[in-house]
Amino acid sequence: MIQWIYFFDLCGTAVFALSGALAAGKHRMDPFGVIVLASVTAIGGGSIRDTLMGATPVFWISDPNYIIVILATVIACLILVRKPHKLPSFTLPVADAFGLALFTVIGAQKALVLGHSGMIAVVMGLITGVGGGIIRDILCRQVPMVLRTEIYATASIIGGICYTLSLLSGMDSMTSMFLAMTSTLVIRLSAIRWHLSLPAFDLKTKRH
Amino acid sequence: MIQWIYFFDLCGTAVFALSGALAAGKHRMDPFGVIVLASVTAIGGGSIRDTLMGATPVFWISDPNYIIVILATVIACLILVRKPHKLPSFTLPVADAFGLALFTVIGAQKALVLGHSGMIAVVMGLITGVGGGIIRDILCRQVPMVLRTEIYATASIIGGICYTLSLLSGMDSMTSMFLAMTSTLVIRLSAIRWHLSLPAFDLKTKRH
Amino acid sequence: MIQWIYFFDLCGTAVFALSGALAAGKHRMDPFGVIVLASVTAIGGGSIRDTLMGATPVFWISDPNYIIVILATVIACLILVRKPHKLPSFTLPVADAFGLALFTVIGAQKALVLGHSGMIAVVMGLITGVGGGIIRDILCRQVPMVLRTEIYATASIIGGICYTLSLLSGMDSMTSMFLAMTSTLVIRLSAIRWHLSLPAFDLKTKRH
Repeated sequence: MIQWIYFFDLCGTAVFALSGALAAGKHRMDPFGVIVLASVTAIGGGSIRDTLMGATPVFWISDPNYIIVILATVIACLILVRKPHKLPSFTLPVADAFGLALFTVIGAQKALVLGHSGMIAVVMGLITGVGGGIIRDILCRQVPMVLRTEIYATASIIGGICYTLSLLSGMDSMTSMFLAMTSTLVIRLSAIRWHLSLPAFDLKTKRH
Repeated sequence: MIQWIYFFDLCGTAVFALSGALAAGKHRMDPFGVIVLASVTAIGGGSIRDTLMGATPVFWISDPNYIIVILATVIACLILVRKPHKLPSFTLPVADAFGLALFTVIGAQKALVLGHSGMIAVVMGLITGVGGGIIRDILCRQVPMVLRTEIYATASIIGGICYTLSLLSGMDSMTSMFLAMTSTLVIRLSAIRWHLSLPAFDLKTKRH
Repeated sequence: MIQWIYFFDLCGTAVFALSGALAAGKHRMDPFGVIVLASVTAIGGGSIRDTLMGATPVFWISDPNYIIVILATVIACLILVRKPHKLPSFTLPVADAFGLALFTVIGAQKALVLGHSGMIAVVMGLITGVGGGIIRDILCRQVPMVLRTEIYATASIIGGICYTLSLLSGMDSMTSMFLAMTSTLVIRLSAIRWHLSLPAFDLKTKRH
């Protein structure tokens, strides 16, 4: 069980590192800049989570595998991805959705393991899931995805609530993870596919 | 006394959450995005303060009331604030000034309680007061208020110095808080009302 | 030896504070805003490093000299620097390169002292070296230097690797510091002087 979660965690790290590296490629960064952006995207959210909870040194300091996975992903990306305009346009958003689902569950789980409440678990899932992407977007001077009305934070929060409620209702850890990740993925992928949004809180447009 | 400070702290949290929610409304965010921006604005500065001082888990993890206050503020804001262009234009800056005054004192106080020097107390008051607003402005891609020449950081630093000096000169905690908050509020509200600024450090305009 | 490192650390702090203050001057900030930007640039990277490693309270909380050096630098800058367009245009980039070299070595060293691996030392050198500058650039709404293809992160990473390898190969601490700082400086100054860049990872330009 523990091995599975660990394996998922490294997969999520690779996926987010790829999303950071691809964003770096859009800004014509040099190889070491690509490493920086990929790292920040992949381990930024979890680092914020761990420092807020006082779980320091943060996870990737005591376990070198995270940085090794990031370096391997960046090197593979630099060598293999030469013609991204030939990739289907949904590649990056879909990879990002998988990373969001994985990291939400892992963040919520870590909070529960450390003895925090279900509400804090949802918040920590959200921070782990969206933190890295927000830092990536700020560094690239884009409006963070989470700010746009595309059901991004929403998918993470609902996934976190699913996970916490499933565990509380007595389901085993693996089923809870599966349910939570599926709900995040279905919501986020549906939003991407059919351009769904929740009704926006709109103070800009004047109503007459 | 302790209850009063706690009550003020929750008020400041609500005020900053409102300022974050209103900023989110200007960027047409969905309800969960509004929650994220309101939370970051309300508890961002205090979270930075606590992690720098090693006072982890940070304050809102061990006390659920902060997140409950933020959620209640956001829900009230989503329901009640439908025509903000009918609100007087000074509403947000004035609410923000109250939050700045409250959080400056609370941040400085926490540093002193943890045994740090008066200088560090002023710095921690500043971080608590301006940290959340800076993150809010960065996420909305605006130049942070603190960067503009409108006596913002200045008001917080002077409030922090007032608080520390009042305590050192033997005044009781309540009087010191009142003095410090009043000085921050008077300075900041005057700056808003009469568009005051300190002389800018200006390296852009060439002098002949 | 310890005294030398401490002296270098304060020098690096002054240099980065100056770079932050000059950036503030380009955005016409008021004096207290200048202090905020100078502080964030000078101690931001080291603060991130310390919180990630759990070395809290962070370094400048327990030692007031860092904030005193920053305040002195800002005051000197406000008084003396009135006509920066008369300064040679390379002043800020070169000062920044010295700060990068100093902070890279100091960050790597702190990680090794705390018992972390060579890989983590390189990462912590990078965070200490580029962290403050990235926050400065984000606050000024500029694309962070580290994102541009000018061998910035690269110089820090290579300096960190030099330092760690030199120590591992049995050199004494002072020689290792000297070698690492020289390599960072030579790489970064060459890049500035001859506008060198590594080949960019470019996903924007379509290749036909």
